Amino acid sequence: MTVDEIAEGRRQAFYQGIQPLHLSPLWTVLHAVVTREPVVKEVPHLWAWRAVRPYLEEAARLIGTDEAERRVLVLENPGEVPHPAVTQTLYAGLQIILPGEVARTHRHTANALRFIVEGEGAYTTVDGEKTVMRRGDFVTTPIWSWHDHGNSSDQPMVWLDGLDVPLVNRLNGMFGDPFPTEVQPVTKAPDDSWWRWGQSLRPVGDPPPQARRASPIVNYRYTVARAALEALQRQGDLDPWDGIRLEYQNPVTGGPALPTMAAYLQLLPRGFRTASHRHTSGTVYCVVEGRGRTWAGDVEMRWEPNDVFVVPAWMPHRHEVLGDEEAVLFSFDDAPVQRAFGLYREDKE
Amino acid sequence: MTVDEIAEGRRQAFYQGIQPLHLSPLWTVLHAVVTREPVVKEVPHLWAWRAVRPYLEEAARLIGTDEAERRVLVLENPGEVPHPAVTQTLYAGLQIILPGEVARTHRHTANALRFIVEGEGAYTTVDGEKTVMRRGDFVTTPIWSWHDHGNSSDQPMVWLDGLDVPLVNRLNGMFGDPFPTEVQPVTKAPDDSWWRWGQSLRPVGDPPPQARRASPIVNYRYTVARAALEALQRQGDLDPWDGIRLEYQNPVTGGPALPTMAAYLQLLPRGFRTASHRHTSGTVYCVVEGRGRTWAGDVEMRWEPNDVFVVPAWMPHRHEVLGDEEAVLFSFDDAPVQRAFGLYREDKE
Amino acid sequence: MTVDEIAEGRRQAFYQGIQPLHLSPLWTVLHAVVTREPVVKEVPHLWAWRAVRPYLEEAARLIGTDEAERRVLVLENPGEVPHPAVTQTLYAGLQIILPGEVARTHRHTANALRFIVEGEGAYTTVDGEKTVMRRGDFVTTPIWSWHDHGNSSDQPMVWLDGLDVPLVNRLNGMFGDPFPTEVQPVTKAPDDSWWRWGQSLRPVGDPPPQARRASPIVNYRYTVARAALEALQRQGDLDPWDGIRLEYQNPVTGGPALPTMAAYLQLLPRGFRTASHRHTSGTVYCVVEGRGRTWAGDVEMRWEPNDVFVVPAWMPHRHEVLGDEEAVLFSFDDAPVQRAFGLYREDKE
Amino acid sequence: MTVDEIAEGRRQAFYQGIQPLHLSPLWTVLHAVVTREPVVKEVPHLWAWRAVRPYLEEAARLIGTDEAERRVLVLENPGEVPHPAVTQTLYAGLQIILPGEVARTHRHTANALRFIVEGEGAYTTVDGEKTVMRRGDFVTTPIWSWHDHGNSSDQPMVWLDGLDVPLVNRLNGMFGDPFPTEVQPVTKAPDDSWWRWGQSLRPVGDPPPQARRASPIVNYRYTVARAALEALQRQGDLDPWDGIRLEYQNPVTGGPALPTMAAYLQLLPRGFRTASHRHTSGTVYCVVEGRGRTWAGDVEMRWEPNDVFVVPAWMPHRHEVLGDEEAVLFSFDDAPVQRAFGLYREDKE
Repeated sequence: MTVDEIAEGRRQAFYQGIQPLHLSPLWTVLHAVVTREPVVKEVPHLWAWRAVRPYLEEAARLIGTDEAERRVLVLENPGEVPHPAVTQTLYAGLQIILPGEVARTHRHTANALRFIVEGEGAYTTVDGEKTVMRRGDFVTTPIWSWHDHGNSSDQPMVWLDGLDVPLVNRLNGMFGDPFPTEVQPVTKAPDDSWWRWGQSLRPVGDPPPQARRASPIVNYRYTVARAALEALQRQGDLDPWDGIRLEYQNPVTGGPALPTMAAYLQLLPRGFRTASHRHTSGTVYCVVEGRGRTWAGDVEMRWEPNDVFVVPAWMPHRHEVLGDEEAVLFSFDDAPVQRAFGLYREDKE
Repeated sequence: MTVDEIAEGRRQAFYQGIQPLHLSPLWTVLHAVVTREPVVKEVPHLWAWRAVRPYLEEAARLIGTDEAERRVLVLENPGEVPHPAVTQTLYAGLQIILPGEVARTHRHTANALRFIVEGEGAYTTVDGEKTVMRRGDFVTTPIWSWHDHGNSSDQPMVWLDGLDVPLVNRLNGMFGDPFPTEVQPVTKAPDDSWWRWGQSLRPVGDPPPQARRASPIVNYRYTVARAALEALQRQGDLDPWDGIRLEYQNPVTGGPALPTMAAYLQLLPRGFRTASHRHTSGTVYCVVEGRGRTWAGDVEMRWEPNDVFVVPAWMPHRHEVLGDEEAVLFSFDDAPVQRAFGLYREDKE
Repeated sequence: MTVDEIAEGRRQAFYQGIQPLHLSPLWTVLHAVVTREPVVKEVPHLWAWRAVRPYLEEAARLIGTDEAERRVLVLENPGEVPHPAVTQTLYAGLQIILPGEVARTHRHTANALRFIVEGEGAYTTVDGEKTVMRRGDFVTTPIWSWHDHGNSSDQPMVWLDGLDVPLVNRLNGMFGDPFPTEVQPVTKAPDDSWWRWGQSLRPVGDPPPQARRASPIVNYRYTVARAALEALQRQGDLDPWDGIRLEYQNPVTGGPALPTMAAYLQLLPRGFRTASHRHTSGTVYCVVEGRGRTWAGDVEMRWEPNDVFVVPAWMPHRHEVLGDEEAVLFSFDDAPVQRAFGLYREDKE
Repeated sequence: MTVDEIAEGRRQAFYQGIQPLHLSPLWTVLHAVVTREPVVKEVPHLWAWRAVRPYLEEAARLIGTDEAERRVLVLENPGEVPHPAVTQTLYAGLQIILPGEVARTHRHTANALRFIVEGEGAYTTVDGEKTVMRRGDFVTTPIWSWHDHGNSSDQPMVWLDGLDVPLVNRLNGMFGDPFPTEVQPVTKAPDDSWWRWGQSLRPVGDPPPQARRASPIVNYRYTVARAALEALQRQGDLDPWDGIRLEYQNPVTGGPALPTMAAYLQLLPRGFRTASHRHTSGTVYCVVEGRGRTWAGDVEMRWEPNDVFVVPAWMPHRHEVLGDEEAVLFSFDDAPVQRAFGLYREDKE
């Protein structure tokens, strides 16, 4: 045996010796785990409403609510993320509920949001406040809040669910509970939380219903946010990267609507092309009005109303509005998680 | 000389000796300065609109705006407070402005608020946002913000000014500046701050115009606050001490509208009599709707629209609505200052 | 009567008419209350230990502790401030306690601090922690904490008391209480709070004894702070205005030791002359080591150990060390109050 | 075909149809992802110093520092976690450095901590402050701080590295940078940060070197923390679950030493047996003094000095001290991450 062979043999013995001790050599993986830039596993993808809608209908036919406590088609990122997930930290799904159906009350430590895509008249009840939902409404069901929903209208209703399930599971923080009865009692008037907290007013001596860092507002109405976008457009606001973009705010803290997820409504004027930027947060978009396309890295995604698409973390992206109308996009991301630890970065071109 | 006389003489010598050294004996005043409860110098008082209004008109006739940069009748507390002041920490005044008049732009470290008592159509400009004011509107001009006003309507206009001048002067913190020109340029659209921050939405990437712990909202409209009071009344809110009371909120922090002053709008139903309570904050009320009376300690104050009255700190008080209508009261107090140092206390009966 | 006389008569009638209504014209006082810079009423002054010390002894002879619950000579500012006060917001006094004396337990909403000037071996007990004090120690007795003291040594002991009494009284926030018995029970070990919180460590599951925004540390030892000053001196720290100046910190929040008062220990090297600056906070100094002089405005104050002097708010001041030794100054100010409302300003030359 | 077969066929078609659209049915996985309690993937494990130490020596012989920028044996959790990792969010490794070796300067957004296991005299430099390390010292190298180390002593030195790499990678937040030169310049005196911030004092006008929510203290000395444990033991502290446990604190905020990781030093008296509890944070322990055993779930881990062991999230655990000596344990966990989002829970028996 040569000296080299001896050395190599000793190395092999070393590597074989440490394995059963549950030790591994950092030097073989250091450059793969402490990288110069994030190595992002999620990829851009668009779920076309045209393609998904028929399957929602079919799911409604095939799957009863007794079978499916929540009848949701999960939007699965085609990249190598732990499923179900739309990004490394976020979950998204499209939920359909038929007239007459009711989904039972539960709560969990995952935060959830709903953005109404189709229909009008179904309701969600959150901690005793029942809100009747309309297209474009943004509904919060924060950590550990009792929530259920039902459809007392005469048409199916579809919404986008957004949750932080992948994050909460990774943090070993998932707890869940069913409510003792199927439907929780309604103890508050419609839009109670909006009147109480929504308009930069607050009732004296009436603390918001939680210390959970989530917005107390159950339903942020589309009419309100849409009118605000128009007002800012008239006032000449136009960000090169985002057009006119409003974040739904927790009025108790001035922070994001949910402790782990921020949500936005954004207007892109007719024909507007944004500049490109990237940020460490990953974003799920849902098209409310208009048509256009978004480039994320090399991928072009063409969109029209009710399409949902995802832009991965740290991937340069830009939008372009097509056709004769302005566009309105709803979106949510995990920026609050990154900001909590100083990990949020943005890179503008 | 007796022993007692000698001792007394020595004491006298002691007291005479320390005086020129600017020393004084604590033991003679300790119980007067460290008391079991606050020794409040301000007293309850009501300024009747009927009585004050003619003097405002007369002031408008006699005093030109060149003479009076701000044509204000100060509401002076009849108690032993350092004037001008309505309580130990607060200042209040009624200001009248005639059609065509303009008051020059300045700024100061005192925080100011305006509550519109009469008229419609005059404007205030705050840091470039011009707001046309209507009766019942609550307007903020926070610390170090440029502000001016003018009346382009065809009627006189009157509002209540509230400032923290007595506090700021006591804290040796008063600075003031005139703007280089009489009128500052208007750089923002009407109600810009409301659209931008007022409704639990906020523009992405657009920080509020200050780090001064004051609300960025220039004008909290009466219509909005009034409608919220009605909504909460329908929802059955009724606090025994306050009826239905909303605080104007700084949407950036969830705190009070101004760092040193909180402001409120409150509805007392027809015939309602509140329970009695007291708190360390002193409060200035302005009647917007309805008639009634308020007891503060032994003093009964009967009020009707546009009357202003003051309830001193730590004085038990209660309200009663008279006549066939519900009552709406605007008020402001110094609770944020007391809360900042853990000095706020409330005592309920 | 001429037209002017008529006008003047009408004016007089106006001014006479508003007075009984407790109204006053703002325009005659506006420029006196909303000023370009603070109009400070307190003046610089030095209380020489040499002159004061004999009167402390005489007070000890003349005044029993039964008569004087606290045997203190108040340092009264010669300016026009409401007494007792050393500045508009602060109170300072020199307290002497004889061997064997005990001062009964009480609490109040005023915050208090003690800086030990002479002697060793007396104790203060704060909320059950008894600390034996030595010259140079800085002791906190925050808002609403039970405190008492006694002298079990064989020598008199003198300390400087600092309180926010003028502020708290002005804010209508003074409450006080005697303890049910003369001396509260000692429930904690000596220096318990220092071990628990002082050294950037904290006991798990053991919240600090209050939510009162004050430091939980009862006694900040001179030996610790003095050694830190030396270390920073070795490291080359030297601020042109302050030399080497450490602030005593609340380890729970990173804020000042008391919610309304900040306290400091500062080293000025041998022969050092600081540059001049001013700030809106007013400062009380106590000389620990060395000799020197301080100019505040036009006033020169020569100092040596145990002298106390006051530098008013917004007055330019600078220090100079005389003799062959470095100087160490203790000081406290009201900067936290001004910072709470954005009123703190500094102006450097 | 029967009706059931037809229905089943239709279902199959549905499931096959949605797959290429990157949709999945929530109802088949809901109960696996939204669980009643955390489904924890990491398992308890102990790495015995006796077994690991020889491989560290062998690694030192086989692997040069040119090959291994950091010569570390990673402690790999035997459970199903994404490697390298000791829990779902944390990384731990044992690092050895030989006399004369130097590891080059870099920075990354991962937070790192070091706990010294063996040896004395090597140094770490963090943002210009060079600290010579001794056994038991706790050293922080927070997010984005330049750090390097070297061994100028005549003995090998071993420490435990703790990082949040699994979390930061999952959050798509990893950035890294080499320093322009191998070794950064030393710009501060030894223990500068301790003198400046460590003892509840802070230099006036000298903000801590970052806004990164991490402690500015580079080295928390063992001598200090050990003495504090003894003091609290004398004072009778003894928590049934934790004995006497001190958390290393960020003196600027009162929060944890690092934004994502808390660290502790804990004393268990001779013969002490703790009660059992569990919490959502997972914990890595390193034995400093004494012998004992820890049960985590059903697993018993016997430990002696320098052993490292991990207790998974939400797993009931208790400690017992064996032999004639008291025990001292260092530990770190991810509780700050869970607290940031309201996910921290504890369950005591």
